[in-house]
Amino acid sequence: MTDLHLMRTLTQRNDTKIVLLVMDGLGGLPRQPGGPTELEAANTPHMDRLAREGMLGLMHTVANGISPGSGPGHLGLFGYDPLKYVIGRGVLEAVGIGIQLTGEDVAARGNFCTVDKNGVITDRRAGRISTEECARMVSLIDDLKIPAAELIVRPVRDYRFTLILRGPGLSPRLNETDPQKTGLTPLVVEPQDDTPEAAHTAGLVNWWVNQVRERIKDQHPANMVTLRGWSKEPGLPGFDDVFKLKAAALAVYPMYKGLASLVGMTVIEGLAHLRDQLDALKKYWTSFDFFFVHYKYTDSRGEDGDFDAKAKEIEKVDEVIPAILEQKPDVLVITGDHSTPAVLKSHSWHPVPVLFWAPGVSRSNPDVMGFGESQCLKGALGQFTAAELMNLVTAHALRQAKYGA
Amino acid sequence: MTDLHLMRTLTQRNDTKIVLLVMDGLGGLPRQPGGPTELEAANTPHMDRLAREGMLGLMHTVANGISPGSGPGHLGLFGYDPLKYVIGRGVLEAVGIGIQLTGEDVAARGNFCTVDKNGVITDRRAGRISTEECARMVSLIDDLKIPAAELIVRPVRDYRFTLILRGPGLSPRLNETDPQKTGLTPLVVEPQDDTPEAAHTAGLVNWWVNQVRERIKDQHPANMVTLRGWSKEPGLPGFDDVFKLKAAALAVYPMYKGLASLVGMTVIEGLAHLRDQLDALKKYWTSFDFFFVHYKYTDSRGEDGDFDAKAKEIEKVDEVIPAILEQKPDVLVITGDHSTPAVLKSHSWHPVPVLFWAPGVSRSNPDVMGFGESQCLKGALGQFTAAELMNLVTAHALRQAKYGA
Repeated sequence: MTDLHLMRTLTQRNDTKIVLLVMDGLGGLPRQPGGPTELEAANTPHMDRLAREGMLGLMHTVANGISPGSGPGHLGLFGYDPLKYVIGRGVLEAVGIGIQLTGEDVAARGNFCTVDKNGVITDRRAGRISTEECARMVSLIDDLKIPAAELIVRPVRDYRFTLILRGPGLSPRLNETDPQKTGLTPLVVEPQDDTPEAAHTAGLVNWWVNQVRERIKDQHPANMVTLRGWSKEPGLPGFDDVFKLKAAALAVYPMYKGLASLVGMTVIEGLAHLRDQLDALKKYWTSFDFFFVHYKYTDSRGEDGDFDAKAKEIEKVDEVIPAILEQKPDVLVITGDHSTPAVLKSHSWHPVPVLFWAPGVSRSNPDVMGFGESQCLKGALGQFTAAELMNLVTAHALRQAKYGA
Repeated sequence: MTDLHLMRTLTQRNDTKIVLLVMDGLGGLPRQPGGPTELEAANTPHMDRLAREGMLGLMHTVANGISPGSGPGHLGLFGYDPLKYVIGRGVLEAVGIGIQLTGEDVAARGNFCTVDKNGVITDRRAGRISTEECARMVSLIDDLKIPAAELIVRPVRDYRFTLILRGPGLSPRLNETDPQKTGLTPLVVEPQDDTPEAAHTAGLVNWWVNQVRERIKDQHPANMVTLRGWSKEPGLPGFDDVFKLKAAALAVYPMYKGLASLVGMTVIEGLAHLRDQLDALKKYWTSFDFFFVHYKYTDSRGEDGDFDAKAKEIEKVDEVIPAILEQKPDVLVITGDHSTPAVLKSHSWHPVPVLFWAPGVSRSNPDVMGFGESQCLKGALGQFTAAELMNLVTAHALRQAKYGA
């Protein structure tokens, strides 16, 4: 595994084009021992051909045996070791609903909760109110003001919302106010270090919470809030700086657009369907070096536990491979950010299948017949960690100088 | 990956014999998809037999996706993590032409350049003068003297020369004098830290540069010099200290003799051909534990882009395998320091094939039919990093104590 400093030193520009096609949660498991995985059950003639021509492998996007969240999974794909570069929960929540953070913002995850007349929490999730009710609750408090900082409050999902403080001299070094069990009152926000910024921010947040308490005390079941995951935009080294790649993100969902923007990719807005993403690929082909194309529904159907529907989503992606190849990419990588086996209905630790296609400069894996987890075991890339992926990508794009003389 | 401290702790002496046979730039690529690589195209009956009897694998000499220079590639082979142990460019240049450095030497890479009458650089490489012209230019300046340090100036190749200052209290913490573009004058050497050694060395170098300017100002096209890659001999932990191996280097080219000497191997001088190297192997068999045998021409033909000629060079090495086996080595490793695919005409990032033969104590890879990149995918050693190679070597030579009780 190599670090970003090494990549920054070695990478150079040329006119090669790279496509990273991510099927979210691609990796799967067989329904019964010896059976096919979702990817193996899917009919994928185009990817099977590329697998025979290119190289397969299995990739740990965080580390062997670790189940990645979407944030760390994508950071790994983008070449940022997710064990080293950590995105705070508050920031991830804000990014996930499409809020563009500035370097001075402090973000938190908020929960609506239920308190009794003494202010003691009786339900930490306010009866798991619906997203619509969450939006109504947010509309009751999103006009509250505090001095010296702008406030952004947005509903996320169910009982969860995001709170962002925007202004000079703010610090995320604050304690979480959720006491983690019922029968206790929400904690007061206190600074976690001796800086004036932390004290200042704690004061502002407590001021806001007191206004919120007063404003929603007669609502039901949500009549109070807790806050956690205090964090700032992580200030990741820029993708262009490290890899010398002008990168475009072609994604539909805010979370993935947000993650791409955190590493400095240009987010192409207004894409609603895979067809839009392909049109954008064609439209912007000459304007960028690197295209991150994200497809969400493989993960969604895996989370649903619907094996057949997940396989169908993989087939939909296979159908657009010819349109990608028409652009004549020099390097095409088809993979996932983590596995989401339908049998587990959740993200899992299983390494993700990788199809790495770079005509003319890649090794061969002559025993490989098509794209699938078991075929990947015979692939030329072996098993590796995502932090190595961008080494391979820039190398195969002939965008790397040799290391030492 | 383990560090040298662990090896130092575990290794012990016995009377086993080890041969590390390095075909420079061994790894290759097929000329067309599905075709053989250079190694696979070569007729290598002896190595094929050893591959079936021993173990194959694929090795990253620096890291996955990184193209190694000769220095880092060999450091990796010798068990020194090349991302941790860095040999400066000045030292590598000196070592590459066979200069034995002492611990007090400071070495730089020099370029002859062209300046106009105002001293402004008009050509950073002096029209890429020939090596012969470089030698003539060096002969004009190699008698210049400075106080308190001996000077060594030697031509390297084309417009490049090496400068070594030898004396007490010298420091390589100096800036480079090449401004990296034309239209500027060469920079004055300044110390890069506050030590008296850096100030002293900067003063000496400027003194020398001023004499050089005066001496060659009427020459053409080379009439000035720039200096960079300031470095000292890296003081690597000794091969014998770390691995408890008395090692001999049987190499023809100065660069590889120099690299071996940097880790403390005994360099056998006067070897011009592979046959000489084999004679030396026989002659010194009882005097050393470990023999590094280096063969350059596989890399040369790869750099030429001559696939067939590279395959022929591999065949020449195969022919001498019986002579090596006659010595009855306990461990024989046949590999490269990096790949040099003829189709790329350059060093590349592709992992190098490894043939690891240690009769009686090695695992088997029953699916392996012969020595080649695709066969290596089925090899018992899998894919690994060169920093692990010497673990395996000393282990199979039964020269390692177990770790912990």
